[in-house]
Amino acid sequence: MTGMRPRPDLHITSPANARVKELVALRRRRVRDSRHLMLVEGLEEAALAVDAGARVEAVFSCPELFLPASRAAATALVDRLREHGVETIRLSRTAFEKAAYREGPDGILLVTGAVERSLDELDAIVGEAPLILVSQGVEKPGNLGAMLRTADAAGVAAVIAADPVTDWSNPNVVRGSKGTVFSIPVAAAPTAEVLEWLAHNGIRAVATTPDTDVLHTDADLTGAVAILMGTEKTGLTDEVLERADARVRIPMTGLVNSLNVATAAAIIVYEAVRQRG
Amino acid sequence: MTGMRPRPDLHITSPANARVKELVALRRRRVRDSRHLMLVEGLEEAALAVDAGARVEAVFSCPELFLPASRAAATALVDRLREHGVETIRLSRTAFEKAAYREGPDGILLVTGAVERSLDELDAIVGEAPLILVSQGVEKPGNLGAMLRTADAAGVAAVIAADPVTDWSNPNVVRGSKGTVFSIPVAAAPTAEVLEWLAHNGIRAVATTPDTDVLHTDADLTGAVAILMGTEKTGLTDEVLERADARVRIPMTGLVNSLNVATAAAIIVYEAVRQRG
Repeated sequence: MTGMRPRPDLHITSPANARVKELVALRRRRVRDSRHLMLVEGLEEAALAVDAGARVEAVFSCPELFLPASRAAATALVDRLREHGVETIRLSRTAFEKAAYREGPDGILLVTGAVERSLDELDAIVGEAPLILVSQGVEKPGNLGAMLRTADAAGVAAVIAADPVTDWSNPNVVRGSKGTVFSIPVAAAPTAEVLEWLAHNGIRAVATTPDTDVLHTDADLTGAVAILMGTEKTGLTDEVLERADARVRIPMTGLVNSLNVATAAAIIVYEAVRQRG
Repeated sequence: MTGMRPRPDLHITSPANARVKELVALRRRRVRDSRHLMLVEGLEEAALAVDAGARVEAVFSCPELFLPASRAAATALVDRLREHGVETIRLSRTAFEKAAYREGPDGILLVTGAVERSLDELDAIVGEAPLILVSQGVEKPGNLGAMLRTADAAGVAAVIAADPVTDWSNPNVVRGSKGTVFSIPVAAAPTAEVLEWLAHNGIRAVATTPDTDVLHTDADLTGAVAILMGTEKTGLTDEVLERADARVRIPMTGLVNSLNVATAAAIIVYEAVRQRG
């Protein structure tokens, strides 16, 4: 929100319009990365993003597609953004349906600034004795989104993706995060850099692995701590397991012997909350 | 697996075949309920289901669709089921693609007996001082599946759906559960009956709600305990909150102030594991 004077709405009817094509292009990670922009689709997520302080560049709307139950809220959101000087673009139904990436679009689509920070940028944010969550190699956007919700609830200072397969601006990360991707500091970097950054900042690296006798409830998770989670399939890399300050496991019995990675992260993060309580 | 002699494979080429139509019909809950059958699609899930002791009625396969990397495993699974007397049906590609409910089917589809038990049937299973998970009104199959994975890992004795919107045989529950829906006792019943069953069996009902000062880590979760989870939107009903033996909350800070229901369940279940350890 730039704080400029409201501009009159731009109206676009053709799905072949360049602005519509630009929205479609932003579904691609390469385009998001180069433009430092991302998409937020749907009224609920858009409202959460705005509340979380997202830097909104433009709002695309199609009142024809507004749901009866949320028409007033959708209109109010567009009005609020327009008043804050955000560019407001009205699309025809065919143009919006072309631009939308979801099935059954509800007529609201934001373009916002990217959220990803560098590790250097985190320095100023993490403060004293932070609790940090590091996720290595996670592929599923839904898992990154779920980890952000947990981080939000638990008061985690930052979430770092090490060697990420999925970028923080992925629409399904945004969706799964319920807006928290805009409120929690997130960063991405190669694993070696993440480990160096933790060491340099005096943050203990606690690696999660089945190959240890130490339960997560028996480890010290107070003070400046990063909890490191690997992928469900292969876990953390040897590099991380060797260089970590501690290795812990969640006790597991049963058949499948593998928790969802976001669930496992939540269990350890909340054990840290208990210990830090 | 009935232990009968192997039968020769049935071959079906037409997508209009009655057996193919039957598979399509089993996507509907009403049909699953009346036939006491369910579907398991995909090699990975089928193998997990078989390992977990699923009662397989028939296996439908399409070797043309087997993935190169798992062709041997898919063939071995079909052979193993055939040897155990399970009906083995070979489908043409068009017939399998008609029967499959997933995008990009991998040529394996099982029909198994339903998993849902009545509360009476649980009596014999839950044993002494069980830890039980009760989920009221959950809609998203993925959340039920995730709760089953957690229950499996944590050694939960049974998972009960109270007033469920989704049935345990929903294909996305099966998928999300990674086969654990076949290994963990699951039941469904109206909420009042669930509360009566818990009371009758001397199992303390611990309700999760934001409206209490008691943290989940301060409550006694040892002994015979059921952890009751409501929906993300509205939480547990007043009926449950009033009749529960204890009410606890997970501490939450932050923006959204709501954890995914399966994540919240995992946090409390693992606190119980810690206390019971």
